[in-house]
Amino acid sequence: MLHLLYIIAIIAEAMTAALSAGRRDMDWVGVCIIAWVTALGGGTVRNILFNHYPMSWVEHPEYLVITAGAAILAAVIARLMTKMKKLFLYLDALGLVVFTIIGCQIAEQINLPWLIVLLSGMITGCAGGVLRDVLCNEVPLLFRKEVYASASIVTGAAYLGLEYLSVPVGISIVVACVIGLALRLLSIKYNWQMPKFVYREEWH
Amino acid sequence: MLHLLYIIAIIAEAMTAALSAGRRDMDWVGVCIIAWVTALGGGTVRNILFNHYPMSWVEHPEYLVITAGAAILAAVIARLMTKMKKLFLYLDALGLVVFTIIGCQIAEQINLPWLIVLLSGMITGCAGGVLRDVLCNEVPLLFRKEVYASASIVTGAAYLGLEYLSVPVGISIVVACVIGLALRLLSIKYNWQMPKFVYREEWH
Amino acid sequence: MLHLLYIIAIIAEAMTAALSAGRRDMDWVGVCIIAWVTALGGGTVRNILFNHYPMSWVEHPEYLVITAGAAILAAVIARLMTKMKKLFLYLDALGLVVFTIIGCQIAEQINLPWLIVLLSGMITGCAGGVLRDVLCNEVPLLFRKEVYASASIVTGAAYLGLEYLSVPVGISIVVACVIGLALRLLSIKYNWQMPKFVYREEWH
Repeated sequence: MLHLLYIIAIIAEAMTAALSAGRRDMDWVGVCIIAWVTALGGGTVRNILFNHYPMSWVEHPEYLVITAGAAILAAVIARLMTKMKKLFLYLDALGLVVFTIIGCQIAEQINLPWLIVLLSGMITGCAGGVLRDVLCNEVPLLFRKEVYASASIVTGAAYLGLEYLSVPVGISIVVACVIGLALRLLSIKYNWQMPKFVYREEWH
Repeated sequence: MLHLLYIIAIIAEAMTAALSAGRRDMDWVGVCIIAWVTALGGGTVRNILFNHYPMSWVEHPEYLVITAGAAILAAVIARLMTKMKKLFLYLDALGLVVFTIIGCQIAEQINLPWLIVLLSGMITGCAGGVLRDVLCNEVPLLFRKEVYASASIVTGAAYLGLEYLSVPVGISIVVACVIGLALRLLSIKYNWQMPKFVYREEWH
Repeated sequence: MLHLLYIIAIIAEAMTAALSAGRRDMDWVGVCIIAWVTALGGGTVRNILFNHYPMSWVEHPEYLVITAGAAILAAVIARLMTKMKKLFLYLDALGLVVFTIIGCQIAEQINLPWLIVLLSGMITGCAGGVLRDVLCNEVPLLFRKEVYASASIVTGAAYLGLEYLSVPVGISIVVACVIGLALRLLSIKYNWQMPKFVYREEWH
């Protein structure tokens, strides 16, 4: 079940990433690489930091094919995608919570302390988008956008909290996902923002 | 033989990278770091992703000395290099195919599936340039330039295909390199471009 | 002792990093991530390159709490920090030499050749700031600033040189730190610059 949602999520991430590549006039190679980095980069960064090998896409090279195909499809039907903007925002939110849960679970498997489990969820959910923005030469949206990383942290905390209360794992996952999704979607709908820190002094 | 070409290639990559650093007014430290990242970064990224240690430059620290020396030499003779622009474009193309073959071979040694072998070649050939552009705060040229990553993929595919047909390894390497080089040089000469995906809708 | 200086240094790095985040109007998530990357990123990059696990912040998750707390405090007292600019420049210089020594020691523990030990010190001292600048979408200051990476190299070289002369380790560390600090602080005071390489020809 989580696996199926994972596949849907990487497809959705790859498709929206393709549009970011299009904003920078990239060719098909650029489109594919940006899609890979966005959809698979979060888990890759997590695995590098926690020395957890092999990468999912090395064990399952079909993920590379699926995401590349989805990205090129997105470039072809870009006009249609613009009309389905809302659907993709929902799928992106779904991806965020699914990636977060998977990241938490992997960190639990290798017995990391709970704070690192939470961080692993956030890295898995968010680092792909950060890499995408760095490669597209933009300040990562994550650092400025509405409740995004925060939704990931809340999802992970709910999951860990329910687990701590001995709630069965399946229920913990569903509840944590629903809470995280609700928070993310409400924040999009009402344009919630985290307080920003604006500083203009030059030191150098 | 491949080793000799590798040394020539990292020297050439380091020298052209130094000019990129010069466009950003970097000092000698910046010039050396950009040269290292460009010449040795592709293999380094590959090794990190596939958990293949130690790095070549840890086993052979002389690579760091050679590339740093080449980069500083390039800064000194920058005017001369501009005149030899064509030579360096050729050497860069040579580096691309040599790095690609080496990347494929290393992935084969650790028994990765063929799609990942191809990707390993592309990462080894191209990631150094991507890192250089990120550090120089530019959208990676790779994602937009004439047939570059594509030439790497074709080189790797030719190498793997010939190997599959039981052609002796030495011949496979030479033929794959010639095909890749020809493709890259023709694309420079005739300014071939991959189709670009241009998208201007704002979502956020 | 070195450990105490390390804690002071990561706090100082996290606080100045928060101001960089403020220049890009980041929210609290961005502020924390930039602080983590700046304060802990140098050692993290070093560990990835040399396959040295686990990360310090995985073993000591409290480092994440301390640096995040320091960063948020910095955002709150930003005005006060501007007035204490000099203090933070000194603490940043202290961090540079302390990180450098720690980086050299870790590379020595895993028996890397001396040139790599020096590089390990420089990476530990400087890579955090490079990552910060990449995430803030700027050309890394390190590549252009007054004697910074050079101070790290001199610190590492002094440490290695004294060790080679069989000077007791404690004395080597203190002398190397004093030399590195003096060089860095003098370069700030007199605005020393490394020679820059400026190049304006376009190749593409």
